Amino acid sequence: MARSVTILGAGLVGSLLAILLKKRGFDVSIYERRPDMRVATIGAGRSINLAMSVRGWKALELAGLRAEMEQIAIPMYGRYLHQADGSAAFQQYGKNNEAIYSVSRGELNRKLMTLAEQEGVNIYFEHRCHRVDVAENILHLEAPGGAQKTVQADLLFGADGAFSALRSSYAQRDRVNAAHFYLEHGYKELCIPPDAAGNMQLEKNALHIWPRRNFMMIALPNTDGTFTCTLFFPFEGSPSFERLTTEQEVVAFFNEHFPDAVSLMPTLLEDFFGNPTSSLITTHIAPWHYEDKSALIGDAAHAIVPFYGQGMNAGFEDCTVLAGLIDQHGDDWATILGEYDRRRKPNGDAVAALALANFVEMRDKVADPQFLERKKIEKELGRMYPEQFISVYEMVSFSHIPYNTAMSCIRAQDELLGKIMSEGDFTENVKQGAFNTQLDNWMNQYHGEVQQLDFGK
Amino acid sequence: MARSVTILGAGLVGSLLAILLKKRGFDVSIYERRPDMRVATIGAGRSINLAMSVRGWKALELAGLRAEMEQIAIPMYGRYLHQADGSAAFQQYGKNNEAIYSVSRGELNRKLMTLAEQEGVNIYFEHRCHRVDVAENILHLEAPGGAQKTVQADLLFGADGAFSALRSSYAQRDRVNAAHFYLEHGYKELCIPPDAAGNMQLEKNALHIWPRRNFMMIALPNTDGTFTCTLFFPFEGSPSFERLTTEQEVVAFFNEHFPDAVSLMPTLLEDFFGNPTSSLITTHIAPWHYEDKSALIGDAAHAIVPFYGQGMNAGFEDCTVLAGLIDQHGDDWATILGEYDRRRKPNGDAVAALALANFVEMRDKVADPQFLERKKIEKELGRMYPEQFISVYEMVSFSHIPYNTAMSCIRAQDELLGKIMSEGDFTENVKQGAFNTQLDNWMNQYHGEVQQLDFGK
Repeated sequence: MARSVTILGAGLVGSLLAILLKKRGFDVSIYERRPDMRVATIGAGRSINLAMSVRGWKALELAGLRAEMEQIAIPMYGRYLHQADGSAAFQQYGKNNEAIYSVSRGELNRKLMTLAEQEGVNIYFEHRCHRVDVAENILHLEAPGGAQKTVQADLLFGADGAFSALRSSYAQRDRVNAAHFYLEHGYKELCIPPDAAGNMQLEKNALHIWPRRNFMMIALPNTDGTFTCTLFFPFEGSPSFERLTTEQEVVAFFNEHFPDAVSLMPTLLEDFFGNPTSSLITTHIAPWHYEDKSALIGDAAHAIVPFYGQGMNAGFEDCTVLAGLIDQHGDDWATILGEYDRRRKPNGDAVAALALANFVEMRDKVADPQFLERKKIEKELGRMYPEQFISVYEMVSFSHIPYNTAMSCIRAQDELLGKIMSEGDFTENVKQGAFNTQLDNWMNQYHGEVQQLDFGK
Repeated sequence: MARSVTILGAGLVGSLLAILLKKRGFDVSIYERRPDMRVATIGAGRSINLAMSVRGWKALELAGLRAEMEQIAIPMYGRYLHQADGSAAFQQYGKNNEAIYSVSRGELNRKLMTLAEQEGVNIYFEHRCHRVDVAENILHLEAPGGAQKTVQADLLFGADGAFSALRSSYAQRDRVNAAHFYLEHGYKELCIPPDAAGNMQLEKNALHIWPRRNFMMIALPNTDGTFTCTLFFPFEGSPSFERLTTEQEVVAFFNEHFPDAVSLMPTLLEDFFGNPTSSLITTHIAPWHYEDKSALIGDAAHAIVPFYGQGMNAGFEDCTVLAGLIDQHGDDWATILGEYDRRRKPNGDAVAALALANFVEMRDKVADPQFLERKKIEKELGRMYPEQFISVYEMVSFSHIPYNTAMSCIRAQDELLGKIMSEGDFTENVKQGAFNTQLDNWMNQYHGEVQQLDFGK
């Protein structure tokens, strides 16, 4: 008999997981700490929109939501860089016109909840889980009105986010390793509305970046014609949130650093002083599961910073992999959860590291001509050697190659690109036969180094 | 008016801190989770004895307990190595006959508690702190009998060990970083009693080590003629605790790996199956303090593995440094706690790293002839260049040089010793004038590299 499943958290990952498990014949209940976002006016969590890429789409397809979400997803084909001098440049992500997609977090979450309920999942809102007795699989919850309640879980998944109650209950057990740390940068959301005629004020199909070395602003398009801007900025030091305390200081700062954006932001001061300044956490824990009884999934297992746009994608991929393991191993939950942990934990660690590294890339390196040159060469190499070379960015964003494989390719790609760039102008060199032989050799060497890795077939 | 101080934990560090604060005119209360170890028969915490070195002695001197403790401390002048083939060798620690001292943890703790009470400190036993409201400085306690109780602290110190309630309350706050991890090795205490005539069965004034690459046993002398042995051993794998499940397996294992010890251990099987297998945790947190209201100290701030014998010494040094800052800054607690954090946190991180590295040294490297040769050369260099060279081991164990300074010297010492050892037999080489010029140059280079570090005057 199929086990009944309890899920903590009706966020993106919890709701999606519920659908996939229900489709596989399990009884599924979700306990969600917040009110129902479909009836209450509350935010959807830590950001307004997110970037969906192929790992996310694959999971939505399994859930049967892909086509519907595609209608309201805005493709972003590249980075639109806004330099400090007011100049701008578009930098395409993929060599085949691939895109990442700006999606409303709230809209996606509401659709997932509704679909879950249509499939027969019970969602209990306003039930906050304090802690889990891990060995006994008992949830200690506070129900609406403050009543204390315990629930005996059969099979339990913690999809309850970066501050997961299941995670912290795991972390108190002997020989469970846990770590979390915050960036010295926080973030604040701001807004660029449409113009008076209702037109978008920036290029629609791009992820906009204002890279400023130690800080940056980004903007993602929304279907209502607005852009959500996010300022990633140090909490302390100069400049920092701590130092921008008056309207004059904020205006002067934006005029200096974001001259082309500030005129598009009529509610800047209102947003800046009205919206919260939020922190950015990365979490690690090991193991991710307990015997055949429970496991962590999504942010609860691996909360990461948002700079690769992979948080939701990684969580959805957790669900895809778990669903595949259930299809493979039936009701052998010791094997399913053990294998899930073994396969996903290294990927959780890898995507956390990739996301941290991409912050430096986005705020600092993308403004560097050398970096732009490298991106161009990477794209060219992909065209010249389609069987042998795919850039790390493409692996992460446009493929299902495991994150830890992508990580493992970084050093070899750095070496390869270092050699190529040390020879001077790439386009010029390629015209010369002698260089191409050289390039073939380097590429074979690179390919030899990485081909034993798991590229997920 | 001096603030009143609340301390969580009447262990070694909490009791010592209470004495030092009381001597400085503060009202001091301690809440201790366990019963009074002076009247109840309970263990003294995680190990029976510990190795006191100069940092610990200095703090005891400040407390006025040094002379009394010296009476019951057993000096250990070096490592006594028991090789797998049954051979043995003594390896002196210092060049000036320095020693570390085997001290009974329970005895020391009882004396500290008694002295604290004599000074006028109130100790509330069997008060378990669940959590602290950090911003309000309110302790939530369970009093004897299970009654819930809150205490408003004025100034609070968490000396409540590796699983500190204050630490975990800090860790739940925004932008507080925290990590903990366990070794894959656990430990179990065993015993070597005196012989029938009441004589100690191993050399008294040494720390005995049975280094066996991936595991080891050590033994420290006690004043009652026994030795406390500790087996540090993997939880899983082969060999491991998991694999030693029958009496035959244990006997066979000890006969194979500890042939010279097993005959001295009449209660081996009783001890092995009766004593717990304990885990080994390292913890990090930042920051260590909250405004002018509270701070962590000792294991609560930096729980470390025991392999450098520095856990208690580091905690006592925290107290010494804090007392010095109070003497310097009066009642400016924002400055005192801020400066305490700034100075001690890097040292907590350093001693944690040193302790982890010394596990590899003790169980693996000490059995290596190259390592023994290096130790000999280090001692000789200290004699030849007393102003310029002091080994990292000596810095940690026989000096008050900050731990992070010792850490910073490792690379430069590795380089220096690498050069020296690559030239062949040191004693032979020193006889030749040409080598000594070389040596002078290398030493000057080393000294130049490290002399800008803080050696604590």
